[in-house]
Amino acid sequence: MTLASDQDNGTPPPGYTDNKPDHLARLHKVEGQVRGITRMVGADRYCVDVLTQISAATHALQEVALALLDDHMRHCVTNAARSDPPACEEKLAELAVALRRTLRL
Amino acid sequence: MTLASDQDNGTPPPGYTDNKPDHLARLHKVEGQVRGITRMVGADRYCVDVLTQISAATHALQEVALALLDDHMRHCVTNAARSDPPACEEKLAELAVALRRTLRL
Amino acid sequence: MTLASDQDNGTPPPGYTDNKPDHLARLHKVEGQVRGITRMVGADRYCVDVLTQISAATHALQEVALALLDDHMRHCVTNAARSDPPACEEKLAELAVALRRTLRL
Amino acid sequence: MTLASDQDNGTPPPGYTDNKPDHLARLHKVEGQVRGITRMVGADRYCVDVLTQISAATHALQEVALALLDDHMRHCVTNAARSDPPACEEKLAELAVALRRTLRL
Repeated sequence: MTLASDQDNGTPPPGYTDNKPDHLARLHKVEGQVRGITRMVGADRYCVDVLTQISAATHALQEVALALLDDHMRHCVTNAARSDPPACEEKLAELAVALRRTLRL
Repeated sequence: MTLASDQDNGTPPPGYTDNKPDHLARLHKVEGQVRGITRMVGADRYCVDVLTQISAATHALQEVALALLDDHMRHCVTNAARSDPPACEEKLAELAVALRRTLRL
Repeated sequence: MTLASDQDNGTPPPGYTDNKPDHLARLHKVEGQVRGITRMVGADRYCVDVLTQISAATHALQEVALALLDDHMRHCVTNAARSDPPACEEKLAELAVALRRTLRL
Repeated sequence: MTLASDQDNGTPPPGYTDNKPDHLARLHKVEGQVRGITRMVGADRYCVDVLTQISAATHALQEVALALLDDHMRHCVTNAARSDPPACEEKLAELAVALRRTLRL
């Protein structure tokens, strides 16, 4: 896995390009939440208070997942539907796998 | 919220004390996972690959929650059941709230 | 809410038409699972055994939801993407709401 | 699996005895919800409307699970904590498994 931009290789930008600043802002917030949870455990904070913060971070991560799913359908899937039916089939199969994982099934 | 150890105030250690190194190790790993997700979005990685990593981080956070719930019941709740029934009632009410939040109900 | 077929009104068939027998078979199985859980509680069965069956029924219901989401994207959303962009916009907004509810966010 | 009451065999009543009428009422409601979903699919109702009802039924089932977990901790686990520490250990291990399944981990 390389972290260099996929666009370097001439691949199209991902479906979330327009909302990338929002996604990054939310992810930075989640990073802060997880660091806060680590500090709480390090400081022997009460179990139930730690659980409350874990729920908040989990929820925030799932919100990012939902936003990315929405972007993906709005761009990658609908564009493929319009211009490349076999690629669309593939994207739908891939999306079903991603949804199954996100729903933890 | 103060991040100094609650034990400074003479409060008993939390139920997760024995497993604290494990919880901290897992939380450090989750921090790394979330930073990795941020880098993927920054590098325009493919939506579905980002979703896969979000599922993994969410799952890892929920594993920490489950381990803390287990520690909490094993120590805080059972100790209260043995020595302080009214405190036990309170802990059970609090635990039901935490479980509701963890189950996202 | 009328339970008569929407097709009586000239509306197009839903996206799940091809898989309707599968969905109905799974739903009948879930009905049986829930009746089984009711009988277990009526018969004072052990709490943890009841919980195991509730997990199984919840999982089976979420599998139906995933299959319907897949059908919906494959038919309703991609057809709209090809033939009716404004309807597609509407379907994508509606799908994001349904996903949010299914993910319990 | 026998559906005759476990109490016939001299086993103690389950932890949910006091709330049994509530649990049965909720479960009967869930049975009705699932039958309603089956009828909707049989009547070719719109995918997204079916998904909404599946979310409601899933949520209702998880509420029953949460209520049973609460009863189980309040009675089975705290009683064992007071009177039979080895049995309590066993119940806590069993509860962790049930929680893992309920959280779908």
